[in-house]
Amino acid sequence: MNLQNDLILRAAKGEEIERYPVWLMRQAGRILPEYRAVRNSLSGFKELVETPELAAEVTIQPVDILEVDAAIIFSDILVVPEAMGLSYQMVEKKGPWFEETIRAESELSKLDDNIDVEDRLSYVTEAIRITNKELNGRVPLIGFAGAPWTIFCYMTEGQGSKTFSVARKILYTNPTLAHDLLNRITEVTIQYLHAQVDAGAHLVQVFDSWAGILGHEQYAEFGLKYLDRITEAIKDVPVTVFAKGAYSSMEAIADLSCNTVGLDWNMNMKEVREAIGEKRTLQGNLDPCALYSDHSEVERMTNNMLDSFISKRHIVNLGHGVYPDIDPEKVKTFIKTVKNYEIQF
Amino acid sequence: MNLQNDLILRAAKGEEIERYPVWLMRQAGRILPEYRAVRNSLSGFKELVETPELAAEVTIQPVDILEVDAAIIFSDILVVPEAMGLSYQMVEKKGPWFEETIRAESELSKLDDNIDVEDRLSYVTEAIRITNKELNGRVPLIGFAGAPWTIFCYMTEGQGSKTFSVARKILYTNPTLAHDLLNRITEVTIQYLHAQVDAGAHLVQVFDSWAGILGHEQYAEFGLKYLDRITEAIKDVPVTVFAKGAYSSMEAIADLSCNTVGLDWNMNMKEVREAIGEKRTLQGNLDPCALYSDHSEVERMTNNMLDSFISKRHIVNLGHGVYPDIDPEKVKTFIKTVKNYEIQF
Repeated sequence: MNLQNDLILRAAKGEEIERYPVWLMRQAGRILPEYRAVRNSLSGFKELVETPELAAEVTIQPVDILEVDAAIIFSDILVVPEAMGLSYQMVEKKGPWFEETIRAESELSKLDDNIDVEDRLSYVTEAIRITNKELNGRVPLIGFAGAPWTIFCYMTEGQGSKTFSVARKILYTNPTLAHDLLNRITEVTIQYLHAQVDAGAHLVQVFDSWAGILGHEQYAEFGLKYLDRITEAIKDVPVTVFAKGAYSSMEAIADLSCNTVGLDWNMNMKEVREAIGEKRTLQGNLDPCALYSDHSEVERMTNNMLDSFISKRHIVNLGHGVYPDIDPEKVKTFIKTVKNYEIQF
Repeated sequence: MNLQNDLILRAAKGEEIERYPVWLMRQAGRILPEYRAVRNSLSGFKELVETPELAAEVTIQPVDILEVDAAIIFSDILVVPEAMGLSYQMVEKKGPWFEETIRAESELSKLDDNIDVEDRLSYVTEAIRITNKELNGRVPLIGFAGAPWTIFCYMTEGQGSKTFSVARKILYTNPTLAHDLLNRITEVTIQYLHAQVDAGAHLVQVFDSWAGILGHEQYAEFGLKYLDRITEAIKDVPVTVFAKGAYSSMEAIADLSCNTVGLDWNMNMKEVREAIGEKRTLQGNLDPCALYSDHSEVERMTNNMLDSFISKRHIVNLGHGVYPDIDPEKVKTFIKTVKNYEIQF
């Protein structure tokens, strides 16, 4: 199927673009009343993730309503540990919770062997197929997965945490277990991303939400090593790596075999560009809180960010997922400002 | 009273030291069975904070048991908002919780005017006096307060948060309110730190626990501006600033009128030293998770850190508060290793 708007793919590859493409992390979600209507008709978050027709519906909503330049499949990074044999609950106002965790070698037996990833996560690939059919080439569809380190955090800790000290403890006390588990997560993640691409994802993004809790050396050993395997394995579509808080590893991330590096809102876009040069596209990074401002301020801050770019290789986004209580009209102002911006070079 | 061990004060001032001084953030606390015995005899955390004899007792425990080179008064940064009129609860396993918050100009009236800080926080100054009397000059006593930005986060958000989006929203939607509240917090904090120094604190540390959630420019406007006022106001004792996660502001922090800059465990000590030169003492920054390793590993990693120092201006600490489930014997190994280390230059 020919894409009518392939701006984000050209931007990712460093090809010529007539304007900057724009989308938002968490654009399919609670900011839209249309999403909440679907969500509230169901028993819970997981039912939405696991029902392909509905996941496709909420994936397309921001394309219709916000007019973003890409859709991102509605799902969750925790479908991967679930496919491996550790199921999760999404507890209202608390976040994810795993009944079982892996904290010792003997507990690796809780994981299923030789799983058929495509079969176990067929609800995601099916949602991708339905979405593309319904989008009918209007915009590209982004697939995604969590980075092995971030998935490891949840599989060991069993829930969210400020310090993830259970996960980090294992890196010191049992690095062999850490690498065993990271290896297994990496294998499943590669199969999963391949399945998404086979189903029709035009670009994939890997989210390393907890990159920022490791120092430079530990992130190289337990984070980047596995991201390297993933980015080397995905060759058919552009790959984006978003490692939140990985300030001291930006150059190493840009050395991965990825097309695009995502920046959080605290990262200095210009400094990163100066450090890595033109070899990668940068994605981000307006502070999601900026969208609480009034419309003229949103426009001013968005233009300021665009003015600060010293290269054309950009995909515009927020520096984090859009917050649930942001007015969708502010999001529209952000998007419109990016679309109206004339690239200077 | 003459101090028998003033190593940390000399290190803070950049004076000659015969070995590196060492202490731990949260050394007075749950890692020690002796602390838990005191704590469990009480109704809650706040009773301990507000009972000077008991606060003094747990403050001295790590000096006796762990043989650290400084005591730090047992208290909480949230005594400041409470003195201002917003009382907090410490909810078991959940953390701090405020019934009232400040999110609009009209809500500033919830705060008390013209408070007598020394009177309202006399339980802290009294604890400082008792501690010093009982320590009898064995080691210096560290006083502390939260940085205005971090206190602002709690007073607006009302509880802990991953994103503190309520607090950050105000910076965009009502910067006037933000500065009004930050000003009031700063004034009270300066009075509070003066009261601690008058009571006998030999050094004060300002904790900016949520520095890392602001980008460089916002941190300059809403964080550093007020830290600057505090560090300019405290002249009689050395001042330490610990701004967790403020990677992109380390040089600006070193430009404050402080003696010591604290580094979290993800910061690169050598890079910071190269960036700021010899003008400040650096404090930190072993990963608290390193203490989960066995004794020989703790020793090896501690020596590695000490070997990496390229200057003598150091106070050794962890890069974050010690985690509650760390074996105190590992802490002793950490401390002993630092004490046995021979400075090379």
